[in-house]
Amino acid sequence: MRDLRHHREALALNTATLGHRSPIEAVIDKCAAHGFGAIAPWRRDLEGRRLADVAARIRDRGLTVTGYCRSTYFTHASHAERQAAIDDNARAIDEAAAIGAASFVLVVGGVPDGMHDIAAARQQAIDGVGALLERARTVGVALAIEPIHPMGAAGRSVVNTLAQALDWCDALDPERQGGLGLMVDAYHVWWDPDLEAGIARACRDGRVLGYHVSDWLRDTRDLVTDRGMMGDGVIDLRRIRGLLEAAGYRGPVEVEIFSATDWWVRPEDEVLEFCMSRLLDVC
Amino acid sequence: MRDLRHHREALALNTATLGHRSPIEAVIDKCAAHGFGAIAPWRRDLEGRRLADVAARIRDRGLTVTGYCRSTYFTHASHAERQAAIDDNARAIDEAAAIGAASFVLVVGGVPDGMHDIAAARQQAIDGVGALLERARTVGVALAIEPIHPMGAAGRSVVNTLAQALDWCDALDPERQGGLGLMVDAYHVWWDPDLEAGIARACRDGRVLGYHVSDWLRDTRDLVTDRGMMGDGVIDLRRIRGLLEAAGYRGPVEVEIFSATDWWVRPEDEVLEFCMSRLLDVC
Repeated sequence: MRDLRHHREALALNTATLGHRSPIEAVIDKCAAHGFGAIAPWRRDLEGRRLADVAARIRDRGLTVTGYCRSTYFTHASHAERQAAIDDNARAIDEAAAIGAASFVLVVGGVPDGMHDIAAARQQAIDGVGALLERARTVGVALAIEPIHPMGAAGRSVVNTLAQALDWCDALDPERQGGLGLMVDAYHVWWDPDLEAGIARACRDGRVLGYHVSDWLRDTRDLVTDRGMMGDGVIDLRRIRGLLEAAGYRGPVEVEIFSATDWWVRPEDEVLEFCMSRLLDVC
Repeated sequence: MRDLRHHREALALNTATLGHRSPIEAVIDKCAAHGFGAIAPWRRDLEGRRLADVAARIRDRGLTVTGYCRSTYFTHASHAERQAAIDDNARAIDEAAAIGAASFVLVVGGVPDGMHDIAAARQQAIDGVGALLERARTVGVALAIEPIHPMGAAGRSVVNTLAQALDWCDALDPERQGGLGLMVDAYHVWWDPDLEAGIARACRDGRVLGYHVSDWLRDTRDLVTDRGMMGDGVIDLRRIRGLLEAAGYRGPVEVEIFSATDWWVRPEDEVLEFCMSRLLDVC
């Protein structure tokens, strides 16, 4: 397993961890100052900015861009809404290319309002991803399907396990031409009885485009915004990175913590210090 | 698919649905009065009661007992705590027999305080179930492992899918001598991409000991006590019962709703009316 102390390039910060409080320019600067080597910005961070300016600042601070976050949901009751989502995500792919992101992160959407058919929603999501694949390949940004914890199946994503996401990749890219893979997030997959097999398959197929860390708090009080700092919960993060690296993964380890009542209200520098020390000590 | 209007014996009420507000005697009477044919009491309902009296009242009202709820958690950091849990669950199995329950429902426990090793917790749970199997067979009460939604993996149960629970059954009862199976709860399994295969396997192996219904609310605000009434959420309940019955299931359809801020504060008769009409209309 890599000693992350000697792999600054692998230490990544997802900007959601800071709660989108400061301008992206300040976040980029702090990220570099705290020793991170990569950043994952959100679309909301870039509103009103010239993308070339942001890209230049990221480069100037010695950072790379892991994933650009994230897709508009693909799942909707009407065809018109689904097409609008595809169009919007196509624009986001161009933005991802403009800032030099390695991938565009796909959170595909849940079971739409008024629907009860999760299988139909899944097909909508597959179709939506498929509609974007050529464009993504053309601009050189990989599509990173993120399997989301099953507690998000209704509201956020109908792709809920590594195996399922890999099946989608196989269906959409049977020849393994590339440009399509997975964002693996420890928070979403740690519980999976088939985690070891899923990671092995994902790495064997060359599908792992990134790896997110945070922690599952024992007394989780919210289904989205109550994640813990690495080391404060129950996930054996060192084991999961060990599985990934034993299977060949050498990409970033990216902190992504949604925490409305704890980390998002702490001073940003304190958050970044915790992220870095815990990345090195428990991940 | 059965028309449940003609199968009163299959219409079951889990007493947790009423929030354990009234004495079990009143709950038994109301359950029968509202047209249910079966009941699933909790251990807390029977505290301070003569079990033979409760059993007689249940029989007198024309009800059967589906599952007795539920196990003490098997997963603990210390051997002494694990043994105490086994001993307590052995007593519960005797209680289940005394009230004529078909099964004893096992919620096996999460990742214990101080542990980060979910695989070790899973082995503790398997060992705990295995330690009780002969006693359960002797007194004629089946052990019903309930796979719990992955959002409960830390706090409530490390068995989280049908396939995983069936693997445990295979390991503990390779000759299929019986006395061991699953409690299938739509709320816990509806999201599973392998739901259809899991149900088919469970029925083929003769492992389905019961079926619980409630609904997943789109704006779920609590990981345990914010379930919805059938029809108020996103689960396609008719499809899931269809899968079960197509695979041969003919057992009870049991309402189990944990709802601290909605159904548990409504009048019991109102709750029971909703349960019955939704059982017949959407399940």
